[in-house]
Amino acid sequence: MPHAIEDAPALESGTLRILPLGGLGEIGRNMAVFEIDGKLLIVDCGVLFPEEHQPGVDLILPDFSPIRERLDDILGVVLTHGHEDHIGAVPYLLRLRNDIPLIGSTLTLALIEAKLKEHRIQPYTLTVAEGQHEKLGPFDLEFVAVNHSIPDALAVAIRTAGGTVLHTGDFKMDQLPLDGRITDLRAFARLGEAGIDLFMTDSTNADVPGFTPRERDIGAVLESVIAKAPRRVIVASFSSHVHRVQQVLDAAAANGRKVALMGRSMVRNMGIAAELGYLKVPEGILIDYKKAANLPDDQIVYMSTGSQGEPMAVLARMANLDHQVEVGKGDTVILASSLIPGNENAVYRVINGLIALGATVVHKGNAKVHVSGHAAAGELLYCYNIVRPKNVMPVHGEARHLYANQQLAIETGVAEDRTILAENGTVVDLRDGVARIVGQLDLGEVYVDGSTVGQITDADLKDRRILAEEGFISIFVAVDAQTGRVVVGPELHARGFAPDDSVFDTVIPQIEKALTEAAENGTRDSHVFSQVVRRVVGRWVNTQHRRRPMIVPVVIVA
Amino acid sequence: MPHAIEDAPALESGTLRILPLGGLGEIGRNMAVFEIDGKLLIVDCGVLFPEEHQPGVDLILPDFSPIRERLDDILGVVLTHGHEDHIGAVPYLLRLRNDIPLIGSTLTLALIEAKLKEHRIQPYTLTVAEGQHEKLGPFDLEFVAVNHSIPDALAVAIRTAGGTVLHTGDFKMDQLPLDGRITDLRAFARLGEAGIDLFMTDSTNADVPGFTPRERDIGAVLESVIAKAPRRVIVASFSSHVHRVQQVLDAAAANGRKVALMGRSMVRNMGIAAELGYLKVPEGILIDYKKAANLPDDQIVYMSTGSQGEPMAVLARMANLDHQVEVGKGDTVILASSLIPGNENAVYRVINGLIALGATVVHKGNAKVHVSGHAAAGELLYCYNIVRPKNVMPVHGEARHLYANQQLAIETGVAEDRTILAENGTVVDLRDGVARIVGQLDLGEVYVDGSTVGQITDADLKDRRILAEEGFISIFVAVDAQTGRVVVGPELHARGFAPDDSVFDTVIPQIEKALTEAAENGTRDSHVFSQVVRRVVGRWVNTQHRRRPMIVPVVIVA
Repeated sequence: MPHAIEDAPALESGTLRILPLGGLGEIGRNMAVFEIDGKLLIVDCGVLFPEEHQPGVDLILPDFSPIRERLDDILGVVLTHGHEDHIGAVPYLLRLRNDIPLIGSTLTLALIEAKLKEHRIQPYTLTVAEGQHEKLGPFDLEFVAVNHSIPDALAVAIRTAGGTVLHTGDFKMDQLPLDGRITDLRAFARLGEAGIDLFMTDSTNADVPGFTPRERDIGAVLESVIAKAPRRVIVASFSSHVHRVQQVLDAAAANGRKVALMGRSMVRNMGIAAELGYLKVPEGILIDYKKAANLPDDQIVYMSTGSQGEPMAVLARMANLDHQVEVGKGDTVILASSLIPGNENAVYRVINGLIALGATVVHKGNAKVHVSGHAAAGELLYCYNIVRPKNVMPVHGEARHLYANQQLAIETGVAEDRTILAENGTVVDLRDGVARIVGQLDLGEVYVDGSTVGQITDADLKDRRILAEEGFISIFVAVDAQTGRVVVGPELHARGFAPDDSVFDTVIPQIEKALTEAAENGTRDSHVFSQVVRRVVGRWVNTQHRRRPMIVPVVIVA
Repeated sequence: MPHAIEDAPALESGTLRILPLGGLGEIGRNMAVFEIDGKLLIVDCGVLFPEEHQPGVDLILPDFSPIRERLDDILGVVLTHGHEDHIGAVPYLLRLRNDIPLIGSTLTLALIEAKLKEHRIQPYTLTVAEGQHEKLGPFDLEFVAVNHSIPDALAVAIRTAGGTVLHTGDFKMDQLPLDGRITDLRAFARLGEAGIDLFMTDSTNADVPGFTPRERDIGAVLESVIAKAPRRVIVASFSSHVHRVQQVLDAAAANGRKVALMGRSMVRNMGIAAELGYLKVPEGILIDYKKAANLPDDQIVYMSTGSQGEPMAVLARMANLDHQVEVGKGDTVILASSLIPGNENAVYRVINGLIALGATVVHKGNAKVHVSGHAAAGELLYCYNIVRPKNVMPVHGEARHLYANQQLAIETGVAEDRTILAENGTVVDLRDGVARIVGQLDLGEVYVDGSTVGQITDADLKDRRILAEEGFISIFVAVDAQTGRVVVGPELHARGFAPDDSVFDTVIPQIEKALTEAAENGTRDSHVFSQVVRRVVGRWVNTQHRRRPMIVPVVIVA
């Protein structure tokens, strides 16, 4: 019997095991591991962006520990599309074994290769396209075109001795997409006819009623807003949203304006998309933003990043007049983007700043300038009725999204006990057309902070939250090893607590007194002295200020 | 000529000066100062709740500095209604002069008196009602009924030698409110006929098209949700929303359920509202929540606080199973509340927790269980057309709201140069039917943290943000005053930076070397030594970790 995934129950030959490492109970770091007969296949390997209770964290990775000892058994990583929450953790996985094959569409691989270049990694890749079949050991893969907010996205059907899985990746069902590449429901139907034992489907918009509007409809809005704009137009959107940028280029061209792309990722991604033919750039419309300043105001569109209010991105810097392009009265700013929960204050800060500068701000709240990239409830119902899966496992979402998606499956006739509400680390085995939960692995958060990976712990984040809320007081004192008398200090310093250290004048004598008493009682141990200091300062700060700063006593017995 | 407000231009006799101290450019801490002939009148005195870039701050107060030297000239504070963002800063103003008269409706004064009791302040009050006139020195006041999300709200007309102002307070125009007390448009019309020189109007929903739905419509939704609920029902809303609670009580009664009020502020406020007759409590429907546990699940409704995901409030604790009421499968939770921007992640965390426990969660995203308390654009247009003011000054909102409100005034025929987009501290003078900006005071943020008021500065908050993002490294070392040699330390400690201090093994010798070199070069000054330490540790942490923790060197020359 093959070596099973660490901590998971033994896996019988001929049974397919599904282990989600990320993306369940959260929006991001999507990653699923499939195992049969000792071999592993991975679908997606993304990052999660931190929330406000995870200060200073740059990225959150899936916990690779269950596969750390199984790296040589990994036959490949299927990347369904090029968004960060699906490819962002690949560099960190390849650091563990750099020759794991990456399998994806042309654009998806181009985007991950550009990212890997920054990490100085040259990956092994296998380019696939919709309709294509690939056999990787016990995994027989078939790729299916799906429509999403980035081109060239794929769903993947995984045929194994344990059963057949259809994994949608992220998708929606725009019936008239810009590139004509629709989610291939005929393939979904054919696969369903042959029998889908487990349907893993995108839950992101499962709690949104009805249908996601067409991307195409945004074009007319952009065109009319730009037509009415008296002076400069600045459009902010996601730097990987090729079709959104395409519509901005077309709307600019229709209004005789040139377009300057701004923001490193925007310039890089659109360069790749144009080179590969996914972005059709009207002849001579692009212009360097420095040259753009020489054009009349009504002949320029700036296409920028920063639609989520990121303080370092182009748009926020414009709102702070901290950018060469100085926004002013008569300018029009379009946020052609979603508003990701948690970013509201940052985005509204930017909008308020732009309005205060005299700009007109157009956003999804007052115009139809954004549509989602994910299937809403109405679309998911179509999928369930077309595929008619034996078992359903909602993926990609918080608990509320997974639950809503499960309810949709049940409404279409899937038995509740054939629907699986899983979490990261839930071990699901598929055999004889039945999927069941057989275990739960305890996975952790892997925080990337600066150049460190997994060094920062939840305890450190707890400390950071305390420091953020209350600041700290550090107390240094050196005592004589023989007498226990204070020889240096006590020196008190604080940050984030009070404007100056003079507030400590009243507590210093209390500290000296307590230390002397402790010494007279025979204390010589620095830890005991530290506790004495902590107690005195803690009591003082609580009674004097009703606050709880972090207290950091350092007592040296010299 | 009377002593003018500090730093403001001189004020001629017979001119009315308007100085907003809060609520412009923000949602909260609403406060406006009116001055004429040496006397001051204040309308509202509220608090602002901090955003994520103000960690650890409990409340933000208006900056009182312009009136600090004028306290004896204050004839009274008109409180338009009992919400925190309109009354919350009163205790801090009364600390400066505790006999400033408070003028407001019965409920408003009852709520502020309850709050002041906690601050051990017994205020001087003047109870007023709609239709009532009061003369305070040069200010002739008339109070007008307005409808809002708390009962007994008032607008105030202020007649002076400089002109007449109509200040709406917060309001909407529900035409069929639960208590039948509508915004008195007939009074608005009469005042308009007589001539309103300056109209100060609530901007909160000015960028929301159309009309705010009726509070009344929520009742039927609550009743049907409760009727369908198989087990317990938990409703969370604002602790001052008397009519929302009224509808919950009525819906519970209609379904033969008892109601347990939970949360200190909910119990206190509803006690006051019931005692004064604003809340009509169906006979015997209220029950202590401890006793409620003995009732059958389908006969109880818990009415709680925490609708904004506040971690310490009842609802969040229920979601964490950290409350006597243990939420489980079959329970129904209703968030009959708005979702205040910035609270999204906290609220969704609570919703996800409740869903994971098996509860059904009903909220404004999936049912009509909340309506706003503020007039939307359509309602504001009615106001402008009924009042026909000579000058307009939008209040209560961020830049985007004030701008949207200004545009509505202009659309109804107010000349753009008769509309005033002001900020906190903008000095506006009204004379001969013309309002104009005559100055701008530089106001600060006054942070309440624990028992301290105004002690924490923006510099402290910047430190807190750095500490939150990166943590800190403290380095202690004592050097000999004569030789400059290190006698104690270097001792390195870090928080929020790394799990343990062993990471410093490599940098300690570098510090010792640098200090010795500095000493040999004649350095004896602790500040210079500190800079040496800061430089060495800073370079090390940047190259080794690509991070920027706060570096806190403490060098004692002993």
